[in-house]
Amino acid sequence: MARLKESLAGPTLRRLGEYLMILEQRIEEGKEIVSSSELAEAYSNTPSQVRQDIFRLRYTGRAGQGYKAVELAESIRSALGMDDVTHLAIVGCGKFGSALAEHVPFERYGMRLDALFDVDPKVVGSSIRGIEVLHDSMLEDELSRSQISIAGLCVPASAAQDVASRLAYSGVKGILNFTKRRLKLPQGVAVRHMQMACVFMQLALDVKAGRL
Amino acid sequence: MARLKESLAGPTLRRLGEYLMILEQRIEEGKEIVSSSELAEAYSNTPSQVRQDIFRLRYTGRAGQGYKAVELAESIRSALGMDDVTHLAIVGCGKFGSALAEHVPFERYGMRLDALFDVDPKVVGSSIRGIEVLHDSMLEDELSRSQISIAGLCVPASAAQDVASRLAYSGVKGILNFTKRRLKLPQGVAVRHMQMACVFMQLALDVKAGRL
Repeated sequence: MARLKESLAGPTLRRLGEYLMILEQRIEEGKEIVSSSELAEAYSNTPSQVRQDIFRLRYTGRAGQGYKAVELAESIRSALGMDDVTHLAIVGCGKFGSALAEHVPFERYGMRLDALFDVDPKVVGSSIRGIEVLHDSMLEDELSRSQISIAGLCVPASAAQDVASRLAYSGVKGILNFTKRRLKLPQGVAVRHMQMACVFMQLALDVKAGRL
Repeated sequence: MARLKESLAGPTLRRLGEYLMILEQRIEEGKEIVSSSELAEAYSNTPSQVRQDIFRLRYTGRAGQGYKAVELAESIRSALGMDDVTHLAIVGCGKFGSALAEHVPFERYGMRLDALFDVDPKVVGSSIRGIEVLHDSMLEDELSRSQISIAGLCVPASAAQDVASRLAYSGVKGILNFTKRRLKLPQGVAVRHMQMACVFMQLALDVKAGRL
């Protein structure tokens, strides 16, 4: 079961996730030691914030000599409950959905992509990273016999609400909505809207206002 | 020039951007009147927060009868400085970059996609929404004679830092980094990291911790 420390608050967990991504990159580059100021670069944290976050982990190294990258990554994984793999589905395997399925390193962050769905006969039956794209009509069946709790929604906007409701009805607990449609879902199902226009617009606003 | 009210803080501007996206959807659905509680659904705002945000705009309608969708959208556009179009480039037109170029309705949110770059001879010379994909080697030339201030970075991780530095050197003020590589850039250039693994992971954490 998850070794998620319930005492760690959401923002702390999110920062730990960010540190982990930086650590992964440093490990890939062959670095063994990472400093708190390197980790602080992530989201304009301060090194003291980093030290405070890491102090709460089971990691026992000392900040003064830098953190041992592999060991710290392991402690963070454990705190984030990554031993308890999160199972994912992606619904809609057009350009965007299939790019996610192909390129996102889910498995490195405690997740596993288990199912892909689409309605296009040209796509159904093909495979991405060894996962067969199933027809949308198999969604309920497939989810009922899986442990999938999170879905990425990459269908056309006109189908978004319908598919999202079916996902929620089939036991999915979190939906990452990449469509431009706002979703209404029953309580107990989390939705995060990832509208790309909005992401670009917010950066444009920050640049215009000089908030760099 | 921009009619961005400098007095509006970043979070307010971001919320206004969210309201605008909901309004656009309602207008598309043929609705003329939108209530503050509908707008509040966006990011679990309260209706009173919505009313407070809208009170600061030039919109003169009254909340009690609901907001006139078209007029309110216009006021928000004006407050967000959308008359002053932001020009964009996308660098890297693989699956992900080309999906962004094809599907994101930039023009509806005060932005215009002006340039696309890639290195793949199979892609260079093709067009997406009427915009020709130029060879990466033309990046500096093209940016020097354009008004492009924001770039979406969709190149392979191994090329990310190099391309980002060239973008910054060519006058780009904001980079949306879709690669998994962390970037180092000169002061005055804003970077937003949009690592998809991280977005999924954060939703997974929230679901595990019951923060819905």
